[in-house]
Amino acid sequence: MRLSRYFLPILKETPREAEIVSHRLMLRAGMIRQQGAGSFSWLPLGKRVLDKVCKIVREEQDRAGALEILMPTIQSADLWRESGRYEAYGKEMLRIKDRHERDMLYGPTNEEMVTEIFRSYVKSYRDLPLNLYHIQWKFRDEVRPRFGVMRSREFLMKDAYSFDLDYDGAKAAYYRMFVSYLRTFTRMGLTAIPMRADTGPIGGDLSHEFIILAETGESQVYCDRAYLEMPVPGADTDFSNDAEIAGVVEQWTTPYAATDEMHDEEAWAKVGEGDQLAARGIEVGHIFHFGEKYSKPMGASVTGPDGKEHFVSMGSYGIGPSRLIAAIIEASHDENGIIWPDSIAPFDAVIINMKTGDAECDRVSEELYAAYQAAGLDVLYDDTDQRAGGKFATADLIGVPQQIIVGPRGVANAEVEVKQRKSGERAVKPIAELLASLEKAA
Amino acid sequence: MRLSRYFLPILKETPREAEIVSHRLMLRAGMIRQQGAGSFSWLPLGKRVLDKVCKIVREEQDRAGALEILMPTIQSADLWRESGRYEAYGKEMLRIKDRHERDMLYGPTNEEMVTEIFRSYVKSYRDLPLNLYHIQWKFRDEVRPRFGVMRSREFLMKDAYSFDLDYDGAKAAYYRMFVSYLRTFTRMGLTAIPMRADTGPIGGDLSHEFIILAETGESQVYCDRAYLEMPVPGADTDFSNDAEIAGVVEQWTTPYAATDEMHDEEAWAKVGEGDQLAARGIEVGHIFHFGEKYSKPMGASVTGPDGKEHFVSMGSYGIGPSRLIAAIIEASHDENGIIWPDSIAPFDAVIINMKTGDAECDRVSEELYAAYQAAGLDVLYDDTDQRAGGKFATADLIGVPQQIIVGPRGVANAEVEVKQRKSGERAVKPIAELLASLEKAA
Repeated sequence: MRLSRYFLPILKETPREAEIVSHRLMLRAGMIRQQGAGSFSWLPLGKRVLDKVCKIVREEQDRAGALEILMPTIQSADLWRESGRYEAYGKEMLRIKDRHERDMLYGPTNEEMVTEIFRSYVKSYRDLPLNLYHIQWKFRDEVRPRFGVMRSREFLMKDAYSFDLDYDGAKAAYYRMFVSYLRTFTRMGLTAIPMRADTGPIGGDLSHEFIILAETGESQVYCDRAYLEMPVPGADTDFSNDAEIAGVVEQWTTPYAATDEMHDEEAWAKVGEGDQLAARGIEVGHIFHFGEKYSKPMGASVTGPDGKEHFVSMGSYGIGPSRLIAAIIEASHDENGIIWPDSIAPFDAVIINMKTGDAECDRVSEELYAAYQAAGLDVLYDDTDQRAGGKFATADLIGVPQQIIVGPRGVANAEVEVKQRKSGERAVKPIAELLASLEKAA
Repeated sequence: MRLSRYFLPILKETPREAEIVSHRLMLRAGMIRQQGAGSFSWLPLGKRVLDKVCKIVREEQDRAGALEILMPTIQSADLWRESGRYEAYGKEMLRIKDRHERDMLYGPTNEEMVTEIFRSYVKSYRDLPLNLYHIQWKFRDEVRPRFGVMRSREFLMKDAYSFDLDYDGAKAAYYRMFVSYLRTFTRMGLTAIPMRADTGPIGGDLSHEFIILAETGESQVYCDRAYLEMPVPGADTDFSNDAEIAGVVEQWTTPYAATDEMHDEEAWAKVGEGDQLAARGIEVGHIFHFGEKYSKPMGASVTGPDGKEHFVSMGSYGIGPSRLIAAIIEASHDENGIIWPDSIAPFDAVIINMKTGDAECDRVSEELYAAYQAAGLDVLYDDTDQRAGGKFATADLIGVPQQIIVGPRGVANAEVEVKQRKSGERAVKPIAELLASLEKAA
């Protein structure tokens, strides 16, 4: 993408309304624009990151055997009356009347609707296990939306719902999502630590929040340092092997880890002092087994091998891609801007033409731009007539992992400078060598 | 995808509520489920088609220089008061109050919001032309939603908005979208004929509907047969060459073509009798130049080369991917089910194991399944224990272009049968030959 033809509205001033660094940086980098209280447009740079995040989420859901569907944003109130949540949900639910005065709502979540889909079609245990997910906009009418996309009213959510014959099946489904989440966050360059969460009246121990550590995190968390080095299962993980998956879950739930809410001083004291890690964290995912909470009132049952009807045992599994992006920025930035993990960076590289209009700089920049594209990489080419200092600042701000700096002096020596955004490391590289490596990748 | 692990709820009975063939087939093939009046979930098969349609739309928008953003579904009423449309829009607009009693609405379209984005950032003609698009759910509270996703209340829409300094620039932007639409529909296997549409109080001739012909089409259309053979510009079209693009538009607007509404008997009579084609059509896209209609009341202006402020000249360009899928089915089906064009088929091929449980049939089916996947193709493997007749019916119903039929007799001769869904043509093929061709494609 040529920057001269792109829409990247960088803000020079730090927006006053933004209280946290991710909100400031997303506004300054031209990723989002606020359209109302807790409501944001994703501008081209933001949309690219959102797409990359969703792609990883989707791939890991699919790998774990979940199937993608897409439910509508607007739901009938009648469905929620069946589960008893229509009255119970409170003011966060955006209630709507249509032209015929029928009660509707903007879905804050989809347990009811997906249970309705399930009960309409699935009648036998032979069609289980089943896990349906979708990535769709949700609306929760927060009384005081703030922190940008970290706590907005309209937000994107991946929510998966598992259906099983019994508790054991549901537990295996839960474990698959547990491992899927580990892989999902690792692929985004994050260390997400699963922490036991409150299960409320449901009971049991099948509820985990996935927390990433960030100095600016919203809550206090406590965990064993062992998590920081714990291996995450590879792409060859066999999700059909319940024992293998359970083994991973066991490993990832054995050392101590707890949010403030669930913190247990006694257990904490048993963690070796050198291994104690008390830090700030941000929740980026939540998985939850809730059994028959919806299947029973809504009549979602299957015939079991015993010939009898069984209410299915369900769980739900959420990741908020829009919120996740803010969390990643909280965990990965410096005073100059965002530092994207490679896998979700809006561009893999940015070519900075230090002297647009200079015939040699233009020629080399164009040649590199074409080579990056031919290699199948996402490349931004700063071909604007801004001064070099401004270009460097923009490249740092938007956090592209690699900066290829094309200047008159380097070009005269058939060289460019390659700067890694994360380490700040700069290296002079012969143009021919860079072109050869791109050609090899193509 | 193994059918035994997929969620493909085929209906045996034809749903009574479905009045048109696309609605019937989408329900029967387990593509969609109705969730309320004019509201549908997309089940896994439907979601796959929707994704493929959106991918083509996106690629052709990008190719023509449009930039993807994503605006929220819920909008503030204040924006629509600026343009004067809040009161004018009528009951199709879903009006909402939030917990603070603020007026909001579910966007039926996005002219106001995108104009707000534009005016917030763009100040100079140097940043033009600009075309921003998004693919987002819209809601129009139709008094009587019907025909499935053909006329639903919540529907997916790709809407693009162009911003230019003056009419000439806007016309060039309009032409680019015109050609982009030709390419978009052709890639989906459709012949879409651009027909002049009413421009209302805006005036001028820059409004076209793109119509595909289908016996069950909603409206009467008239056109010259020349359109059926007219070449569509290739992937190498240079969208930065205004003259080249204008040439394509001229070619595609010269022969007679009109909807009933715009039909001109006198001009029609001049079409050679053998060239007259009166048929039924379905609108699948609409492009429209509306000049300063929003930029003026909303104050979206840029400084021109003359140093003066100019209200930008705008156009909008819509395709409804959800509706389009229904239109494609109307145009492409037979008595046995859907016939997907290759480019948007949910799967490229389906492997039909006629005798699941038979060691040789299973072995060959598995081998072919692995080979299709390795070739990067989307393949469905019917590994269920349904009888062969049911499997054939399902494969025809869901319209996958190629059926690979693995039966005991064929396997004994190291052969399978390959059936083309569209032509019905069947050919016996040595397994080794099929494997070799897949390996070559990998």
